[in-house]
Amino acid sequence: MRKKIIGVMGSGRHASAQEVVWAEELGKGVAQNGWYVLSGGRNSGVMDAVSKGAKEAGGFVIGILPRQDDENASDFLDVAIITGMGSVRNNINVLTSDVIVACGHLAAGTLSEVALALKAKKPVILLGVDEDAKEFLHKIGGDLVSFADSPQEVIEKIRVLF
Amino acid sequence: MRKKIIGVMGSGRHASAQEVVWAEELGKGVAQNGWYVLSGGRNSGVMDAVSKGAKEAGGFVIGILPRQDDENASDFLDVAIITGMGSVRNNINVLTSDVIVACGHLAAGTLSEVALALKAKKPVILLGVDEDAKEFLHKIGGDLVSFADSPQEVIEKIRVLF
Amino acid sequence: MRKKIIGVMGSGRHASAQEVVWAEELGKGVAQNGWYVLSGGRNSGVMDAVSKGAKEAGGFVIGILPRQDDENASDFLDVAIITGMGSVRNNINVLTSDVIVACGHLAAGTLSEVALALKAKKPVILLGVDEDAKEFLHKIGGDLVSFADSPQEVIEKIRVLF
Amino acid sequence: MRKKIIGVMGSGRHASAQEVVWAEELGKGVAQNGWYVLSGGRNSGVMDAVSKGAKEAGGFVIGILPRQDDENASDFLDVAIITGMGSVRNNINVLTSDVIVACGHLAAGTLSEVALALKAKKPVILLGVDEDAKEFLHKIGGDLVSFADSPQEVIEKIRVLF
Repeated sequence: MRKKIIGVMGSGRHASAQEVVWAEELGKGVAQNGWYVLSGGRNSGVMDAVSKGAKEAGGFVIGILPRQDDENASDFLDVAIITGMGSVRNNINVLTSDVIVACGHLAAGTLSEVALALKAKKPVILLGVDEDAKEFLHKIGGDLVSFADSPQEVIEKIRVLF
Repeated sequence: MRKKIIGVMGSGRHASAQEVVWAEELGKGVAQNGWYVLSGGRNSGVMDAVSKGAKEAGGFVIGILPRQDDENASDFLDVAIITGMGSVRNNINVLTSDVIVACGHLAAGTLSEVALALKAKKPVILLGVDEDAKEFLHKIGGDLVSFADSPQEVIEKIRVLF
Repeated sequence: MRKKIIGVMGSGRHASAQEVVWAEELGKGVAQNGWYVLSGGRNSGVMDAVSKGAKEAGGFVIGILPRQDDENASDFLDVAIITGMGSVRNNINVLTSDVIVACGHLAAGTLSEVALALKAKKPVILLGVDEDAKEFLHKIGGDLVSFADSPQEVIEKIRVLF
Repeated sequence: MRKKIIGVMGSGRHASAQEVVWAEELGKGVAQNGWYVLSGGRNSGVMDAVSKGAKEAGGFVIGILPRQDDENASDFLDVAIITGMGSVRNNINVLTSDVIVACGHLAAGTLSEVALALKAKKPVILLGVDEDAKEFLHKIGGDLVSFADSPQEVIEKIRVLF
């Protein structure tokens, strides 16, 4: 049986210091539970940090890259899927993951992944979003959407799902 | 010079009666201004109604279809672009349109198009969304996002943009 | 009923002078028969010439662009579909066209479109290919594949199909 | 450093008995050299056999699936990338692989992958194709294309490339 895949989404160069710390913790937690990590694959922000956290904890990391080559790929990937499709690859991130975690504030790119995940009926866990976002997304996603305040709480919520 | 393209997004079979009426009005208004209409191309809900409204007012209608064939295409399309890519075609809708209009309540599919539009720095006009949605999306999209309460107000806002 | 769409594929900047002349003739012939032209949409080689030929004969031209914007689009397009997907858009060209014409020598990009067209069971007409290509492609595509020596012969073969 | 990825392409349910045997041998050889196998991921023909061969030899197998779910996925995948994009995923197969191997006779789908690989300047090794195919593809791909008569010869040619 294949390992479960946890997709962790979030900002690239606009990620905050807090979000980078969270992402590294999330990567570590995912790896320690024996799940694979999936991210947007680039060497910046949440994508790079979750890959680093997972890799350093002995995990396995899949990156779904937007460009036609692996320039800008994170150094911590085990597999780099090269799509050449720009933002269109966001749908692959979502369909390939068993659970989607949004790490930190929702910029437009991450929000598109949350919306595509809900359309595909995948569970989504949002870490550290404000009350407006919670209210709005709960209305759209219903029970598929849940919220957490720490990486540890995200990991616990994933454990319950499997 | 090419004609401007107005992408009108909204629900398929879950569209409300109000949304269908709005979409038909939107199609008519877009056609009367000499712009092209673009939609998700299927023969249901907002997609079908905006195509019908535009076509009956003498307009030109482009549908971007999700499947590998044109089964389920609206009868009111002038051009059916067949993508074979499912929801992935949402990004093409957004990149091809000069302005994106979301007609009615935001289900997950429409929300993904709004988010992808904001990521691509396209102007988005939302018709008939509630206060929570306004607050949340204004935070994400800033000046790119505006709101309207009627199809006529949408058309006026588009006129100002060009 | 929608107009038939004829997809004309061929090289960009590596197109020969002969191929450019053929493409312009093809565009003219398609327009004169009331069909729409579809191409890869860029402002070079076969793509640009077929668009120019059709447009100047009063036709309607659809370009399926590879980039995330319309830079490098041909000046002769009526509709520019912006995919942001690079070569991946080749499959959309093929699925959207009722007939696919390959204009001139087969470079790798055009060959991929011929192969994808055959996979989608679309008729393919090859203009000006050598005997090796004919033998090889006939084996793969059977009756779906035919060959022509002039733009006029291509147009006649399309007429027979409809 | 990431492991090299060898993409093995070929027919699904139309694969011959010979091609299935070859694919299983190829999978075994790729695994024994410490490379990852990539395939179209379905549970039939060449895709399934190369996955089985690699997995049983202790290798690691990536499948790039065409549908929106993992129904029809081979039982021998370690990672299933779910694209929801039909044949469009062929370009991802090619961009993600360091070398592309076509196993057996060229049907339209496999030919599209060979053509897309040559367009992306990737080395392609064709196993067991006839003289017409050799002549034709050598003209299109030049030095990027080579030919082999057995799975062992394919593996030797890959070794020389790295």
